[in-house]
Amino acid sequence: MKNEIKIFSPATVANVACGFDVLGFCLDTIGDEMVVRKTQEKGIRITKIEGYNLPYEAKKNVAGVSALAMYNDLQPDCGFEIEIYKKIKPGSGIGSSSASAAGSVFGMNELLGKPLDKTKLTYYAMKGEALASQCEHADNLAPAIFGGFTLVKSACPLHVLELPTPSDLYATLIHPQIEIKTSESRALLPKDISLQKAITQWANVGSLVHGLHTSNYELIKDALNDVVIEPYRKQLIPYFDNVKSAVLEVGALGCAISGSGPSIFALSKSEATAKTVQKAMYNTYSKTDIQFETYVSKINTEGIKIL
Amino acid sequence: MKNEIKIFSPATVANVACGFDVLGFCLDTIGDEMVVRKTQEKGIRITKIEGYNLPYEAKKNVAGVSALAMYNDLQPDCGFEIEIYKKIKPGSGIGSSSASAAGSVFGMNELLGKPLDKTKLTYYAMKGEALASQCEHADNLAPAIFGGFTLVKSACPLHVLELPTPSDLYATLIHPQIEIKTSESRALLPKDISLQKAITQWANVGSLVHGLHTSNYELIKDALNDVVIEPYRKQLIPYFDNVKSAVLEVGALGCAISGSGPSIFALSKSEATAKTVQKAMYNTYSKTDIQFETYVSKINTEGIKIL
Repeated sequence: MKNEIKIFSPATVANVACGFDVLGFCLDTIGDEMVVRKTQEKGIRITKIEGYNLPYEAKKNVAGVSALAMYNDLQPDCGFEIEIYKKIKPGSGIGSSSASAAGSVFGMNELLGKPLDKTKLTYYAMKGEALASQCEHADNLAPAIFGGFTLVKSACPLHVLELPTPSDLYATLIHPQIEIKTSESRALLPKDISLQKAITQWANVGSLVHGLHTSNYELIKDALNDVVIEPYRKQLIPYFDNVKSAVLEVGALGCAISGSGPSIFALSKSEATAKTVQKAMYNTYSKTDIQFETYVSKINTEGIKIL
Repeated sequence: MKNEIKIFSPATVANVACGFDVLGFCLDTIGDEMVVRKTQEKGIRITKIEGYNLPYEAKKNVAGVSALAMYNDLQPDCGFEIEIYKKIKPGSGIGSSSASAAGSVFGMNELLGKPLDKTKLTYYAMKGEALASQCEHADNLAPAIFGGFTLVKSACPLHVLELPTPSDLYATLIHPQIEIKTSESRALLPKDISLQKAITQWANVGSLVHGLHTSNYELIKDALNDVVIEPYRKQLIPYFDNVKSAVLEVGALGCAISGSGPSIFALSKSEATAKTVQKAMYNTYSKTDIQFETYVSKINTEGIKIL
């Protein structure tokens, strides 16, 4: 059995317009790299962090917290060292903390001979995620670990559904370099919503699931519509409406806030359209004084990858 | 081309627990019979109604109103006579008015050589349905016309999705002979619901659609759960909780109010279980002084049938 593993832990998009708190999908070209290594010395140690300034103390680091939760339950006959090469900026809204929390437990599981299934890995990763967002949720973790599109049917008990991914579906993202705290973004949300809007939203969720199953891009387009959360959260993202109308005009199927923002994602049929959408995002934000980055990615149906 | 057609227009179950206002499915053993006949004399005439006392005047009868809407748009070179052999009791909560509204336009369309598709038929049928419920909705009409499970993505513009039907799925129904007005049942509903409950509901809708696509009966069971509407509406249905717990105990996948009630439906895997569920419903209501009827039906994937 190997003593060391290097992995790619992907960025992810939660909510996917209509599916607040339950839907997510996995990206392919954006993600962290991590090395997990068995050690004779017991315990969990984070030995290297590159890219961003994050705590080395295991119980203060999301990758460490998820690793400790799994480690304490499994009580293996070894310890683990974790190196984190962080490429996903924390607070970008594309699952930065989830990539870390998921990567450590995935790597440990591989080195231990895969005693745990993906649901159990997600369960431990949620312990790390909770450090970052003060609540255990899995809408970024599930796509990182399972790949593709996922629906978190319930968080407790954890029940993750793997949805099919139409083969021509591509994502485009723009990450405006502004800071939005998840707590701030959550605080904006209403406690109650109108029944009428809720009905529209669950019709959209059902339609999106059906559209993914039938590779019906027109239906996916009609379903990628958030009448509940976006009206509140888009206030925190400058030029959101401009980006959205620009990308829909050049053929994106849909466009919405990624997670709690500030990143904005679009889905397109074909890589060519996704690249045109990237240009539209670029052109819109170039006219502003906000720094930003854009990405194009196919949907990653595999999730975390061994490098 | 035929001058006369006899059809079976089925009863239907709207809402399907989690999918208030959008989901529905079609029954097989319960429904009206109707005869539609071309006449030289122009116009729409209802010439026979058996079973229940309903208005003969076309514009006061749901079957007549939908027929007139279609007739006035198509302006065919003939008229139509409609006979209605009503078996679905009006106000039972299993789409009695929808069966009438859908049957007349279906029959006329057949006799005219099928100029209209199912969506257009549903559109005209909605005009009749509006006479009964004061609003145009399609959650009973869509399953009657398309068959199987349907999701009404939106009513205006009308967009109906046909969902797959797992082959072992059977419905059991109990119709307590009490009267609940749709208007009364609607008035009970809150204008606003908690975001948390809405999230649970759209996770369930997405899960049910996924469960139907994958014939995953365990998932269908988990998804058949209404946290939004049932708590309000069940007050109008005596012994609802007793029926529900009795049928879940003997193996039903789920149990909820059919449409706005008073009928209660259950879904089961296998006809044998559906019959056991029927016994449980029967035993529960036998102890009360309320008259009732029970039915078992496979899911009707065809919808309205030519006899």
